[in-house]
Amino acid sequence: MRKSVRIALNQSNLCVGSISSNIDNMKSGILMAQEMQADIVVFPELSITGYAPDDLLLKRNFVRENISAITEIVEFASRKVPVLIFGCVGIDDRRFNGAVVASEGNIISQCGKASLEVKGLFDEKKYFSGISKIDIFEIKNFRFGISIGGDIFKDSVMENEFRENGVGLVIDIASPVYETGILDKPYQDMESLSRRTGMCICQCNNVGGEDELIFTGGSVVIDSNGLLVSSGKVFEEDFLISDLIPKFPYEIKRIPSYEKNKYICEDVIKIDLPEEPKREIYPKIAEMPSGTEEEIILAIKMSIKDYVRKNGFKGVLIGLSGGIDSALVAALCVMAVGRENVLGIMMPSKYSSEGSVKDSEKLAENLGIRTYKTGINEVFEKYLEILGPVFSDFVPGNGKDTTEENIQARIRGNYLMAFSNKLGYLVMNTGNKSECATGYSTLYGDTVGGFAPISDLYKKWVYGISAKINQMEGQDLIPVEIIEKEPSAELSYGQKDSDSLPEYEVLDEILYRLIELDMDVDEVVACGYEEETVKKTNRLLRINEYKRRQEPLGPKISTCKFGIDRIYPITNGYGR
Amino acid sequence: MRKSVRIALNQSNLCVGSISSNIDNMKSGILMAQEMQADIVVFPELSITGYAPDDLLLKRNFVRENISAITEIVEFASRKVPVLIFGCVGIDDRRFNGAVVASEGNIISQCGKASLEVKGLFDEKKYFSGISKIDIFEIKNFRFGISIGGDIFKDSVMENEFRENGVGLVIDIASPVYETGILDKPYQDMESLSRRTGMCICQCNNVGGEDELIFTGGSVVIDSNGLLVSSGKVFEEDFLISDLIPKFPYEIKRIPSYEKNKYICEDVIKIDLPEEPKREIYPKIAEMPSGTEEEIILAIKMSIKDYVRKNGFKGVLIGLSGGIDSALVAALCVMAVGRENVLGIMMPSKYSSEGSVKDSEKLAENLGIRTYKTGINEVFEKYLEILGPVFSDFVPGNGKDTTEENIQARIRGNYLMAFSNKLGYLVMNTGNKSECATGYSTLYGDTVGGFAPISDLYKKWVYGISAKINQMEGQDLIPVEIIEKEPSAELSYGQKDSDSLPEYEVLDEILYRLIELDMDVDEVVACGYEEETVKKTNRLLRINEYKRRQEPLGPKISTCKFGIDRIYPITNGYGR
Repeated sequence: MRKSVRIALNQSNLCVGSISSNIDNMKSGILMAQEMQADIVVFPELSITGYAPDDLLLKRNFVRENISAITEIVEFASRKVPVLIFGCVGIDDRRFNGAVVASEGNIISQCGKASLEVKGLFDEKKYFSGISKIDIFEIKNFRFGISIGGDIFKDSVMENEFRENGVGLVIDIASPVYETGILDKPYQDMESLSRRTGMCICQCNNVGGEDELIFTGGSVVIDSNGLLVSSGKVFEEDFLISDLIPKFPYEIKRIPSYEKNKYICEDVIKIDLPEEPKREIYPKIAEMPSGTEEEIILAIKMSIKDYVRKNGFKGVLIGLSGGIDSALVAALCVMAVGRENVLGIMMPSKYSSEGSVKDSEKLAENLGIRTYKTGINEVFEKYLEILGPVFSDFVPGNGKDTTEENIQARIRGNYLMAFSNKLGYLVMNTGNKSECATGYSTLYGDTVGGFAPISDLYKKWVYGISAKINQMEGQDLIPVEIIEKEPSAELSYGQKDSDSLPEYEVLDEILYRLIELDMDVDEVVACGYEEETVKKTNRLLRINEYKRRQEPLGPKISTCKFGIDRIYPITNGYGR
Repeated sequence: MRKSVRIALNQSNLCVGSISSNIDNMKSGILMAQEMQADIVVFPELSITGYAPDDLLLKRNFVRENISAITEIVEFASRKVPVLIFGCVGIDDRRFNGAVVASEGNIISQCGKASLEVKGLFDEKKYFSGISKIDIFEIKNFRFGISIGGDIFKDSVMENEFRENGVGLVIDIASPVYETGILDKPYQDMESLSRRTGMCICQCNNVGGEDELIFTGGSVVIDSNGLLVSSGKVFEEDFLISDLIPKFPYEIKRIPSYEKNKYICEDVIKIDLPEEPKREIYPKIAEMPSGTEEEIILAIKMSIKDYVRKNGFKGVLIGLSGGIDSALVAALCVMAVGRENVLGIMMPSKYSSEGSVKDSEKLAENLGIRTYKTGINEVFEKYLEILGPVFSDFVPGNGKDTTEENIQARIRGNYLMAFSNKLGYLVMNTGNKSECATGYSTLYGDTVGGFAPISDLYKKWVYGISAKINQMEGQDLIPVEIIEKEPSAELSYGQKDSDSLPEYEVLDEILYRLIELDMDVDEVVACGYEEETVKKTNRLLRINEYKRRQEPLGPKISTCKFGIDRIYPITNGYGR
């Protein structure tokens, strides 16, 4: 038997949510470690899921796939490398930022990160339990300690747990986030830690860009004399092989206090997840909670009033499309800040139906607000004239697509912002939650504005609230023509929302389940919706995170408001 | 002596950060309570600062003003109302979400919220210590308990602390956040709590809109039989006066366990804050940490590559203005994804200097990237033609202002997005941190894009990094003309950044202190900068939070990245 232990550190660039590609990445690392006859192969913090998965961690299926992946990788490593160490999230109700130690196809132990982060983009305390129990295991008569991102620097860990129990080598899995000047720090800190304790230290780090976070890499191997044995590249994947001779046991006198099985985790991960998808446990129709229309109206009214007042705006302006969303926003604004402070802008194009201006005029008359009409045709034609030849150059046989539709929406956005700049009025955004969820909008077009009063209302709620306002007023303040017309973005001839989206009746029910009830796709399907429609809806929800990040804020009305109650990474390979 | 106690609940609509207007609001409440001969006057959670102040809580001056306000309001209430209860943040190193009880001009006790929130927009655990010590005080032979938002529902509080110590009436100060269906909940919960414990319960709630949060109001007064005595309006300010007869002591047998002064808080707020502003403790020039240019280049390079790759884009496109920012972004993109995947778009206007296209062409040649040139003049003229008459109508004698400048920037934004839509390329944003900080940008104009690689680099760092790239390449990859020209947005004739902003040399040093070192204005002035310049810079920093919220994400490079390390509310009256 070798007198030293050979450790392979995989400094991997993982993708959040992309469990299968992360597993592939790990498999090649294991094969490489096998070839190098390593005793232990190590992967970084949360290697299965990628760091940081945010609210993906609240998805039961995501956690389930994480667990299947654990089985798969533990199995794969069996008979290739004696010991496998990697990061993952724990089981259902005991979710932690964990490290698993596996040997010969079995999980021999696991532990969780104790010093959870609160600051920064990933709020670990929201998702994980902190676990103070420390993990120690033995192979080849060496005794090892496991630490997760930062725990190693807690005195209690190194001194009280590891040192007292004769640990000779500590393996830390981590995700150091780059900021200027941080690169040298870990080495120095770790060297002095090793010198102080006499332990070997291996830190295996994540590397790569994930939205705003840059993981540095720069893994470290330090021998028992506190000397740097080797270090990983920064900002690149790397694979480090080191032979280490831990002083073991570190202080033989203290060994008796270590009971062999005390630190073997009793909560071994159960691989087969129990529950079947819930079937029909929720009502088929997910309406707005009944009887809440009036309170929602009052709530939004106050939020508009306070945003305008507390931020010192002179008034508000709204692009009136002839549709229900802008009509409702206009009505709410009048209720909030008074008709004299509300300005409606109509911006028809050649694709606008005859009704869209007429209906907006009627609305404005009912509400008693000033309006202005400024068509976009001429400007739009000019864009086409300038950009058309360029695009034909780039895209042979350039046909019209959503590019041209988006240009129209963006001209309207520009108009509204120009009015806002000129008058000091706040642009009110008119997007609803069904649109935000599916990205049925043009970024910098109809997404412009400072405040988005109905952005947390599903389209069906928009209808309910509008009807309620008319009922409260005892007249059709919002003209019935607007309420009854079929939703359309009017960016091309005869266009209807239902050309691109499922009918709102169905869409909202699916969205409600995916968002408010946080169901997985299979659970929604089990409620009786068409699988294809559910998958499409879920895909739209997933890929439009980037749009929502740049959309204006609006009041929280539902139980699950985007950005407050539901936080997902943009760069996210889950379900791709 | 009355056998009952008269309590006045002020359900106030406060403004975050606007300490002076909040104090005014409280003063009128105190006068009203005085008129009604109330024994106790109560204000909601964090009434001094407003809820939720986010990173304002990390500002020493903000906390100091909060403390001055405490003195002021305690003084004001003296001899008007026997007991004053309100919410505030604690002292320097013992900051908590606190409640103060004052009587006759003295703070007789204070306590802090124990069950801090992690979820949602306001991460209390980031700012506050949880304090499990419970506050009990006595007046008129009644015994009162204080609770802060939610603590009242912890069994340990009501049963073990309050009940065992003979508390007959609990006052809870809170900030219930609206969501559908939540309005009735507090009543029911509180009624059953009262019935179970035999205590009177008064809950005084915040009301009003604050960015995405809507505080409901709906304060509650429940008598010792669990019956609702009165309740505050929802979504409006309100003032409730109630006479209550607490069962006192609740269980006389248990009284002995209560020691009179045990719960009087020993950490009485010290009113005079100690430290003078730090003077010159930091180097006068706040350069980029020296020697980090190369690591920053590698870090950004990786972040671009990973964002593009992990999100599946075909390539990237960049608006080339002839300035240093877009030149650096183009160079970094070439390093990250290869020249064949980078496209430069030149969009000159009549205000563009001759050099701006020529220099961009030279840059593109050096980098070996494809470019396209598409002027914006004709489209711009068309906007003016359409909007000009409208504006003259609205604004008599309409003169040109930033409205027209912004239109140009937004046309460019539209062009870039059209290219992106047509080609499936990712638009790279070219804004730097000095611009993000001061809002020197056009929202939906030069702020467009999916990724903002240099958004965490101060302008001076942009120069440093550009020089380093040239040095590393052994040639002027970024043409020296671009590095040496004076920064300009070129949105009007002869325009220079320094017309609107302090010179970057000074601006960056001030920003560095305000942001990275988190200094208050007076501290920066004490470092030797002109007061007026510091104040102007700080004001720009403060009022442009709304822009930053809608800007694309970019990699964290500095120690204090907007949105990760520094989180402020948009609606924020502090320092207005």
